[in-house]
Amino acid sequence: MTLLSARNVLKGTVKKIEHGVVNSEITIELAGGAEIVSIITKSSTERLGLKEGKKCSAVIKASNVMIATDL
Amino acid sequence: MTLLSARNVLKGTVKKIEHGVVNSEITIELAGGAEIVSIITKSSTERLGLKEGKKCSAVIKASNVMIATDL
Amino acid sequence: MTLLSARNVLKGTVKKIEHGVVNSEITIELAGGAEIVSIITKSSTERLGLKEGKKCSAVIKASNVMIATDL
Amino acid sequence: MTLLSARNVLKGTVKKIEHGVVNSEITIELAGGAEIVSIITKSSTERLGLKEGKKCSAVIKASNVMIATDL
Amino acid sequence: MTLLSARNVLKGTVKKIEHGVVNSEITIELAGGAEIVSIITKSSTERLGLKEGKKCSAVIKASNVMIATDL
Amino acid sequence: MTLLSARNVLKGTVKKIEHGVVNSEITIELAGGAEIVSIITKSSTERLGLKEGKKCSAVIKASNVMIATDL
Repeated sequence: MTLLSARNVLKGTVKKIEHGVVNSEITIELAGGAEIVSIITKSSTERLGLKEGKKCSAVIKASNVMIATDL
Repeated sequence: MTLLSARNVLKGTVKKIEHGVVNSEITIELAGGAEIVSIITKSSTERLGLKEGKKCSAVIKASNVMIATDL
Repeated sequence: MTLLSARNVLKGTVKKIEHGVVNSEITIELAGGAEIVSIITKSSTERLGLKEGKKCSAVIKASNVMIATDL
Repeated sequence: MTLLSARNVLKGTVKKIEHGVVNSEITIELAGGAEIVSIITKSSTERLGLKEGKKCSAVIKASNVMIATDL
Repeated sequence: MTLLSARNVLKGTVKKIEHGVVNSEITIELAGGAEIVSIITKSSTERLGLKEGKKCSAVIKASNVMIATDL
Repeated sequence: MTLLSARNVLKGTVKKIEHGVVNSEITIELAGGAEIVSIITKSSTERLGLKEGKKCSAVIKASNVMIATDL
């Protein structure tokens, strides 16, 4: 079983993929309905076989999560 | 109204705060129940007045969201 | 009033915008004359209504600021 | 002469250093008066010989600079 | 089989672990002898069961790799 | 002599360069044979004079190195 040091491994489903020239923008719907947008290279999108409806996880280091109040 | 260039501004509520010497670990419960952990400095925790139950947003740049399959 | 956990919120003015296919390169002139370059998506540039002369802030986490000597 | 791929290499002077157990918080005053806070390890602070008044540069990747309006 | 969007997944072996109060500093020896230092939380070090001699991978997004010449 | 606060300054040689519209993907071969991929802007690639065979260093903050087991 693979383990990652990143604290946030959020299970979800690919909701939408938009391809640019080099990058893809992937919208992931988490359990409960919140959505997270990820930008990865198009080659990684293909290597992972991402497509709408596929199960995946959003991986985010805790130190990359800022907090805002009253936004 | 304040606008941020970051693509992910996820509304939620502070669920838990744990203080280290310098940093705080903040667990945010998003609408729908998913949880995100953030690590910020303890001085920022105080400056923002974070405490359990307070409304806040998790702010994450799309390029800081990696994707994993089959984790 | 919106508060952010990031330590650096530097007030300035948009000095120059260059658009690529997906991203925009924004040059911000800080009070005092120092300049900071930011790369954000073109869609965020539009969403924030950035144009030359507009007031804005550069937001940078302290842990993303490296230090060099004798460069 | 050393060159770095990072777009922002901002010359300044160390204004203040605060040491934690593991990290140091370095305040750099840029030409013109703007200030940037950096968090690096205390061992790097020592390795670079940083102290108040020393010349140094703040190095920041353009993609780590977010933009906010009306903050 | 788990796949990650990060471009750099470098196989190696834990060479040294130093624990701070909150974080651990992990030195990984890559095949061929190059060494990479990682800082992760002590809780992640324990969760992954890291110890000297254990096989692991260093995971680094390509956009987090800067380049310097003549350093 | 230039010093950087980043913990990882890994000496190597440019093995391959692929240009996109805005960014370049640089493959660096480290001493011992491990390879690291970096994405920087094409303008930085030109500014640093990068080409196959050129000596350079990959610069990576320790906090940007995640760890995975059993990948």
